[in-house]
Amino acid sequence: MNMNSTPRGERPHIAVFGRCNAGKSSIINALAGQSISIVSQVSGTTTDPVYHPMELLPAGPVVLIDTAGLDDTGDLGAQRVRRTKSILDRTDLALLVVDAESESWEFEQELMKTLTDKGTPVIVLLNKTDLLEGESAGAAAILAAAGVAAQLGTPPVPLSASNGEGIGELKKRMISVLSSEEDRYRIVGDLLQPGDTAVLVIPIDKAAPKGRLILPQQQTIRDILECDASAVVTKEQELRHTLDCLGKKPNLVITDSQAFLKAEADTPRDVPLTSFSILFARYKGDLPSLVGGVKTIARLRDGDKVLIAEACSHHRQSDDIGTVKIPRWLREKTGKQLAIEHAAGHDFPADLEQYALIIHCGACMLNRRAMQGRIAEAQAAGVPIVNYGVLIAYVQGVFPRAIEMFPSAMMAWEQG
Amino acid sequence: MNMNSTPRGERPHIAVFGRCNAGKSSIINALAGQSISIVSQVSGTTTDPVYHPMELLPAGPVVLIDTAGLDDTGDLGAQRVRRTKSILDRTDLALLVVDAESESWEFEQELMKTLTDKGTPVIVLLNKTDLLEGESAGAAAILAAAGVAAQLGTPPVPLSASNGEGIGELKKRMISVLSSEEDRYRIVGDLLQPGDTAVLVIPIDKAAPKGRLILPQQQTIRDILECDASAVVTKEQELRHTLDCLGKKPNLVITDSQAFLKAEADTPRDVPLTSFSILFARYKGDLPSLVGGVKTIARLRDGDKVLIAEACSHHRQSDDIGTVKIPRWLREKTGKQLAIEHAAGHDFPADLEQYALIIHCGACMLNRRAMQGRIAEAQAAGVPIVNYGVLIAYVQGVFPRAIEMFPSAMMAWEQG
Repeated sequence: MNMNSTPRGERPHIAVFGRCNAGKSSIINALAGQSISIVSQVSGTTTDPVYHPMELLPAGPVVLIDTAGLDDTGDLGAQRVRRTKSILDRTDLALLVVDAESESWEFEQELMKTLTDKGTPVIVLLNKTDLLEGESAGAAAILAAAGVAAQLGTPPVPLSASNGEGIGELKKRMISVLSSEEDRYRIVGDLLQPGDTAVLVIPIDKAAPKGRLILPQQQTIRDILECDASAVVTKEQELRHTLDCLGKKPNLVITDSQAFLKAEADTPRDVPLTSFSILFARYKGDLPSLVGGVKTIARLRDGDKVLIAEACSHHRQSDDIGTVKIPRWLREKTGKQLAIEHAAGHDFPADLEQYALIIHCGACMLNRRAMQGRIAEAQAAGVPIVNYGVLIAYVQGVFPRAIEMFPSAMMAWEQG
Repeated sequence: MNMNSTPRGERPHIAVFGRCNAGKSSIINALAGQSISIVSQVSGTTTDPVYHPMELLPAGPVVLIDTAGLDDTGDLGAQRVRRTKSILDRTDLALLVVDAESESWEFEQELMKTLTDKGTPVIVLLNKTDLLEGESAGAAAILAAAGVAAQLGTPPVPLSASNGEGIGELKKRMISVLSSEEDRYRIVGDLLQPGDTAVLVIPIDKAAPKGRLILPQQQTIRDILECDASAVVTKEQELRHTLDCLGKKPNLVITDSQAFLKAEADTPRDVPLTSFSILFARYKGDLPSLVGGVKTIARLRDGDKVLIAEACSHHRQSDDIGTVKIPRWLREKTGKQLAIEHAAGHDFPADLEQYALIIHCGACMLNRRAMQGRIAEAQAAGVPIVNYGVLIAYVQGVFPRAIEMFPSAMMAWEQG
């Protein structure tokens, strides 16, 4: 139950790469059988990757991606690169499966280079060690491992998917890589000291799910607890009273974007104030770039093309943010005739160059790497990019207060 | 995403009853088409009911139950009663579909009586009003409605599932009944005044889901916000410091059961202290009965049979509460040789009379009615019943402090 409720964007993405005959599928099955329980299997078309949401204990929910597209060709040609680009862009950990019986690894070398250029951690798996024949099978395995290490620059995990040998070690390595990756990014924990108090302003309106908290609110509370601080949760109407009841000023106030103005009015000027959206813009992407992007709004001219991009298609309510609210805010803020286009789904449209600005959703269905990949794509095309959270803080006039505690974002705001 | 993540036990259960030819399925489809979106359909065997998790806006997630078992027989015979008992026991709102072309309603009268005896709200639907023939179709519909009202004691909602007429009105009635039902029970809101502060002690250990809060924690925070109070969330290690930082004493401290002893030590004696488990025992069931049940533990004798019942089968960890921890606690607490049996699933075993005590799980997969039905069953068999939450507070020695704020539970504790 809990497991299924973790959105894919919040699960580390583990992609399994390898040639068709390397034993990719048997490794996925071995992982599933021994240490991971397959929850569901979302089948795509033949060229699409298959996503297996799984529980990798004790690391937690992950998604294992079977990269159906990377098969027995020796090179990553242009077409193949495009096809697998969306997987590579969202991979938090790559498992590269190498056949112990094989003797050359050009394909793997090329892939290895692509991944390491992106800074993606890779675990190389030397599969089918049980098939090495003869009395010197053990020696052959050692030799094959040494060959792989030399060619791919990293010692492989020897394993036999068919008899399960090495799967335990693989699992350990996966957990170790994921834990070290995860410690690099915090939602809010790096802004607080042990013993600190953060006040969270959470409005209860009809958009709020009944009887629950939305995931970003849960994640923020959890992260506050993890840094030995405490979280005070209040509605916007009670914020002033809640602050009065605290024995000392809080160290931080985090508000839902829709209560920004009320929170700003009620939070003493010397208490840092930001929003869940700004925190998640920072957590998911690159806050200075997005802050740089928001400044473009003031420079938009009649006829400029603006792309509003969402990572998934969702049910649109009557006051949908992407199709209704943001276009209205842009009109009000700029007074210009803008040509607004919309895109939804896994990929950006081609020809990003034509746009004066890209406005991206909060990316709850994308992982950090995928969101950062999109920011990089926009930058490569020379197009400023901002996301919903940063844009909302801006149109509500709480800039720059909402980003004051982030020095690099403030620099981006104050520059040019 | 959000919708699917609401466990069935937290969704109001709306069961659709009616004879086979009354148009049950077409009404379910009409609801699905107009006001409800079907998320998934869990098919059971032919005699099992079919559960449709749905979103009934703005009321929120519900589950619509298609009662396949109640078909064209005129009476609720013994076998049929048994078969549909598990549905009736968990129905929060019954939709009773009556065919406008029919002329007698003995079947419906009997069902109506069963439901009203249980205190289950019923909406009667007069279906197929569009099929009433002749120029006086309108008059015929009025006449049929009057007949139903006279025989079933409540005015029906006239509707035509085939052309959608009346579906809007039905939806309105459903939402109204569900809202009034829900206001009768609160998790914690009835213990707090506007402006109050409740401190929540939430340990972060490896059992806690990564990066999130579990549903009872979310529901409690949400309920606190809904009564215009604020929630202070802290780990057990920081509880004392957090209390020191508050300008005044909190009005309530709620702790996870596993931090009970630490929370009790750190919470001033004049501040009410309870646990999430106790709150949910009260919310889901009948706290005084469960408190009465826990007292049986001290009276258990060698050879007594104890039933540990769980509402669902789940993956058992090595220190599983039902099969490992509770049996150990019982041994330690009583020093007796007990015959402990286990049951899991939708129904209690037969012959409850043989047990000296029933220990029930927290019932996260059961709704309030179903849990109350089980308590009633135990009581009918003359067997005391307690649940995990109340038992844990008891074995940890924080009784009666953990129930002091509930007068009827204290009475049950102090009696006999």
